[in-house]
Amino acid sequence: MDPDAVAKVFVEHYYTTFDANRAGLANLYQDGSMLTFEGQKIQGSQSIVAKLTSLPFQQCQHSITTVDCQPSGAGGMLVFVSGTLQLAGEQHALKFSQMFHLMPTPQGSFYVLNDIFRLNYA
Amino acid sequence: MDPDAVAKVFVEHYYTTFDANRAGLANLYQDGSMLTFEGQKIQGSQSIVAKLTSLPFQQCQHSITTVDCQPSGAGGMLVFVSGTLQLAGEQHALKFSQMFHLMPTPQGSFYVLNDIFRLNYA
Repeated sequence: MDPDAVAKVFVEHYYTTFDANRAGLANLYQDGSMLTFEGQKIQGSQSIVAKLTSLPFQQCQHSITTVDCQPSGAGGMLVFVSGTLQLAGEQHALKFSQMFHLMPTPQGSFYVLNDIFRLNYA
Repeated sequence: MDPDAVAKVFVEHYYTTFDANRAGLANLYQDGSMLTFEGQKIQGSQSIVAKLTSLPFQQCQHSITTVDCQPSGAGGMLVFVSGTLQLAGEQHALKFSQMFHLMPTPQGSFYVLNDIFRLNYA
């Protein structure tokens, strides 16, 4: 399958899950996974999902602007996303950038080894 | 050496070189290096530097806002940068995000295996 197509499917799945059921993201991370969220480093699926589910907003809606993909040289794929994040009750959407390093699983799927998220403040 | 410190040194070197002498970036890429620049995919040091030196502006000044770093699981480092790009003669700086996958060289330095650049349009 075309890596760009895989990246696009992953990104849509990730943000749909984030917006509908953040706890469901646990399946996409493993113990060795790393998240850097606005500069804060968190390791392991359980801690990462604890962070994401404790963010100080309940409802949000991600919109994807761009998705770029490259093979990572480690058997995985680097996926670079830009988009906007609309929080419920806020007038303006926030711009964000995020990168994922996706690694293949024995089941033929992918998990997130590296995840770095930044808001792009105006 | 602390990976975050290495990442910061690399990023400062990269943008200082970009702003002063773009052709000098050739030393930071190799034949297997990949650049995705605003969605355009380019492979190999020579083609990457040809692209960067042919961008439609002569003078520019990068300012770094954030640098995040994680080990990539491939013996290298993922570096995620946000910042602004001021083009000579333009009133407003452009916001950008960029990620690098740095791999070690036998000489104890690093080269850029993966590079993805996006402007964050307002």
